[in-house]
Amino acid sequence: MAYELYYWPSIQGRGEFVRLALEEAGAEYIDVARGQGRSGQGVGAMLALMDGGDVAHPPFAPPFLKDGDLIIGQTANILLYLGARLGLAPADEADRLWAHQLQLTVTDFIKEIHDTHHPIASGLYYEDQQEEAKRYATEFLRERAPKYLGYFERVIERNDGKHLAGETVTYPDLSLFQVIEGLRFAFPQAMERIEPDYPKAAALAAAVAKRPRIAAYLASPRRIPFNQQGIFRRYKELDEA
Amino acid sequence: MAYELYYWPSIQGRGEFVRLALEEAGAEYIDVARGQGRSGQGVGAMLALMDGGDVAHPPFAPPFLKDGDLIIGQTANILLYLGARLGLAPADEADRLWAHQLQLTVTDFIKEIHDTHHPIASGLYYEDQQEEAKRYATEFLRERAPKYLGYFERVIERNDGKHLAGETVTYPDLSLFQVIEGLRFAFPQAMERIEPDYPKAAALAAAVAKRPRIAAYLASPRRIPFNQQGIFRRYKELDEA
Repeated sequence: MAYELYYWPSIQGRGEFVRLALEEAGAEYIDVARGQGRSGQGVGAMLALMDGGDVAHPPFAPPFLKDGDLIIGQTANILLYLGARLGLAPADEADRLWAHQLQLTVTDFIKEIHDTHHPIASGLYYEDQQEEAKRYATEFLRERAPKYLGYFERVIERNDGKHLAGETVTYPDLSLFQVIEGLRFAFPQAMERIEPDYPKAAALAAAVAKRPRIAAYLASPRRIPFNQQGIFRRYKELDEA
Repeated sequence: MAYELYYWPSIQGRGEFVRLALEEAGAEYIDVARGQGRSGQGVGAMLALMDGGDVAHPPFAPPFLKDGDLIIGQTANILLYLGARLGLAPADEADRLWAHQLQLTVTDFIKEIHDTHHPIASGLYYEDQQEEAKRYATEFLRERAPKYLGYFERVIERNDGKHLAGETVTYPDLSLFQVIEGLRFAFPQAMERIEPDYPKAAALAAAVAKRPRIAAYLASPRRIPFNQQGIFRRYKELDEA
């Protein structure tokens, strides 16, 4: 039975980290909220599972995955579940915890990236927190982005020089690719300065992009383009000069 | 062999969520960074594991746990590992993922709580982002705290009315207790308004506080008091009038 992914239909967002794992594995899945309401899909089907009074384990927010009767929320938790099943996680328990730990650090990074344009409240418009966003983004590009990228660079170095965990692709590698792609979209100028310091992370991202199934996915209509509603947004005033 | 917990010695912080699980289980553990340097403990021992070039799996930040040769970082990941071993997690895989999903939602909540006093950058002083903090805290108390607490209330209602997952205490229950205690410390006025709407969450917190090992821990010097360096800080100007 196909996996059912539930996520907002018009953005990559946090759902993209799950999509990349499903695509790399060639797994059968339905991107439910992008389907038609008349087929029982669409955003309505997603909200019904979130708000339905008969859902025993309601997710706090999308994305969530349905596998038969099981509903799993929280991006990193979905990847913990899928990683083992899709052959995208290390084999033994200690190494799986390590891969999950890396994914949780990606999660923290993503939240900080999101907050570059929404530092005050996710419920307010960007325009209503633009001044705070400028200040946040300046600090983020100076301190935080290099700190996170430097961390992942070090992890790759201490591993095999090419992957984050083990000697094959695991789901945190796919997520790091997405983060680097997203940063290049959102902060092209700053990334020109920052990226050369982290050649192994950049090489990892390039290698992921070239994997046959990922390359096919990126060229397909299933890949939603980066846009101004997602986590990664290009606001010229937030980038470096 | 005793577990070794590594966390900043002068705050509850994220380490407290791990301490509460270890204490509830009566597990033997060493709070390493609170020990003496001359015994090979203290903050130096913690930093050595974080920055040491020979650590294969370096954590991004404290807390981390050492169990024999295994080093595990990220609070929720530590609890995923310990929960099963300490009898504080559900027995089957689906329910364990659910408990972990709840913990990851607690993690998101904690980050937003932290950002009430540090909305621009964790590396800047509160005084240098006080205006932004006021705006952030206003939105947080109006929208986000009720949203998270309402979510956990609903989860308890759909479970047994007393716990988040299953019919015994699991590690997310301990964490929800800590969050509610922390919010009461940081925002006493706002919590007077907010808390009555979430009676089951409040009752869960009260029940956790009365558990014999937790009560003994809270009364012991092992429990660091809430203070102005942790996640939960009392700044009168950020609370409601």
